Amino acid sequence: MQTERAKVTISVDAMGGDHGPAAVVEGCALSAAKNGEIAFILHGDEAVLKAAVARYPVLADITQIHHSPGVVQMGDKPSQVMRRGRETSMWSALTALRDHHAQAAVSCGNTGALMAVSMLRLRKLDGVHRPAIACLWPSRGKSGFNTMLDVGADVRADEDSLLQYALMGAAYYRNAFDAERPRVGLLNVGTEEHKGRAEIKEAARLIAEAAEIGRYEFVGFVEGNDLPSEHVDVIVTDGFTGNVALKTGEGTARLIGDTLREELTANLPSKLAALFASAPLGRLRKRMDPRRMNGGVFLGLNGTVVKSHGSADATGISAAIKLAFTLARSGFQDRMAERLASVADAQQEKMLGKDDTPAQDGSAEGDNQMGQS
Amino acid sequence: MQTERAKVTISVDAMGGDHGPAAVVEGCALSAAKNGEIAFILHGDEAVLKAAVARYPVLADITQIHHSPGVVQMGDKPSQVMRRGRETSMWSALTALRDHHAQAAVSCGNTGALMAVSMLRLRKLDGVHRPAIACLWPSRGKSGFNTMLDVGADVRADEDSLLQYALMGAAYYRNAFDAERPRVGLLNVGTEEHKGRAEIKEAARLIAEAAEIGRYEFVGFVEGNDLPSEHVDVIVTDGFTGNVALKTGEGTARLIGDTLREELTANLPSKLAALFASAPLGRLRKRMDPRRMNGGVFLGLNGTVVKSHGSADATGISAAIKLAFTLARSGFQDRMAERLASVADAQQEKMLGKDDTPAQDGSAEGDNQMGQS
Repeated sequence: MQTERAKVTISVDAMGGDHGPAAVVEGCALSAAKNGEIAFILHGDEAVLKAAVARYPVLADITQIHHSPGVVQMGDKPSQVMRRGRETSMWSALTALRDHHAQAAVSCGNTGALMAVSMLRLRKLDGVHRPAIACLWPSRGKSGFNTMLDVGADVRADEDSLLQYALMGAAYYRNAFDAERPRVGLLNVGTEEHKGRAEIKEAARLIAEAAEIGRYEFVGFVEGNDLPSEHVDVIVTDGFTGNVALKTGEGTARLIGDTLREELTANLPSKLAALFASAPLGRLRKRMDPRRMNGGVFLGLNGTVVKSHGSADATGISAAIKLAFTLARSGFQDRMAERLASVADAQQEKMLGKDDTPAQDGSAEGDNQMGQS
Repeated sequence: MQTERAKVTISVDAMGGDHGPAAVVEGCALSAAKNGEIAFILHGDEAVLKAAVARYPVLADITQIHHSPGVVQMGDKPSQVMRRGRETSMWSALTALRDHHAQAAVSCGNTGALMAVSMLRLRKLDGVHRPAIACLWPSRGKSGFNTMLDVGADVRADEDSLLQYALMGAAYYRNAFDAERPRVGLLNVGTEEHKGRAEIKEAARLIAEAAEIGRYEFVGFVEGNDLPSEHVDVIVTDGFTGNVALKTGEGTARLIGDTLREELTANLPSKLAALFASAPLGRLRKRMDPRRMNGGVFLGLNGTVVKSHGSADATGISAAIKLAFTLARSGFQDRMAERLASVADAQQEKMLGKDDTPAQDGSAEGDNQMGQS
């Protein structure tokens, strides 16, 4: 008992997913079975959740239920939810996080509403212009995952926002995948320096400059076909491009999967061949399983929020919970906040330096670079 | 002899591809073997091309060679090529098109340089703000292809450019795939009307308004996962987003292909299974073969230019040649020019109408809508 670490509590919006609360609770049970350090607060209809939880003895001692009668629907506009959403399970899940009853929150609900309520309840981190959503992407690299951000928090990003995405994305990747110095790339239409939009060229300069303080390596421009590359860990882009890229990748994978399935069921010999090849095809399916990639992390808020895909089943939800747990346990939220503040300080010092106050500049910058770990 | 249709001559930049002129000439031969109505002017090193052409009797009577000593390299900047590129095979190929010695041009060379030299030699169509590059995308639909534009001519597009892309893309699709009324979608981060950037909402309004004159159906917003959809034929977007989406799709397909190959060669049982499943896997490979999708069409110039992928082999090059042939034969270039002019007229009439000249407005608009076919 003495050596047991404190449990990490995840606040879970149990309603709002396509498969309903039963799938969410099953996802919690899958996680609990593998992880003795986890606890849950489930938000939603109490009677429904009590019945669902009762099916999994592993949840008995580690689960609280917060009754909330309302559910945010997929079609609800963020503005509606912000005005009238107080009774919803989403609102309740984020309030529990804000009040430190939990260390991270997970929801399958509508992305726009979840971001709006997260901003309202948690507030942005000091100095953050805009929060971002980071997704996971299958990678040829060691961890098996790259991350890309922003994939839809905002449809535009200027150079300063792109710099913050680089800092937040590196902090996320470092803590989620235990990578000392993540490699950051900036998404562009070519890797040559002269290519792309003006704000992207400027962002490249800022991101290169902040690499030391941000504890990442900047690998320069990357292209769409580099998203699964083993030469980059964090891909930075604006939320419009990132959202299109994410959905294009999903759509392409689905098209290939469907075509493969069609061909393997086209006639009797093909069906036999599929049976014969079930082992390698099963391994392919497992490696490309989108459920492994489930979990969009909201970065730049006072609290860790993980958005699970609306269509996620129990396995997918369990992956999102694992991500929330890993991030909460790592304490990355505090360290990311420190690092963002350091870069802001360094930028300010540099501007002061340009205004001919070199003495202050030199010493303060030294402090900033040394003080972080 | 009396009933034979006039041949369509394709002006081919035979240098500059990754596999050299031998692959380009082989691609021409593949096309000529299937198509009795085609002829070629090949541009490049005369001695090399003569030797290559001599290997294919089918090319003997239908091929001219234009000697040009220089080659545009993949790393050459557009500005360099514009200044010093007169001696190159690319320049020569576009000059032959401009001078009406050929009805379309094909090149495997560097995209940026090809667009720059195309603009210089052919000039933009009257009223076109910016040319666009349209790519092919595998589709679940009947033709097997969708088209997306712009995929990299320009990194930005305002609402007027997006409208022109819709008009040009619809004209292209109609003529390449014999589709009476192509369905046009506008790429966005969601299909709800309130989503996306301001210029995209405005573009949606303009594209909807011009549907009748442009002879397309506007299906509204589409998302990244709709790119292979059977519910849309032409996907309109800016060149930055389009380029990232195109390369993301290619990269995802390659990742899945590589993973499948790894699993099918992982051990002896898997290798046997691969052998056993070679028929359905071969059909999958054929349906997803990127060489079928080869050929980026430059739209908005006084002449049809098809950009083949630099890494295309003879099969890929032959697909690009077929596309150039189909478009040249259809005479779509002239009809597209007419349609762009009609929409510009209609917009102008409407603006005049807003300035209180309703009489002129009504009649002229009627003319425009009736006069086209």
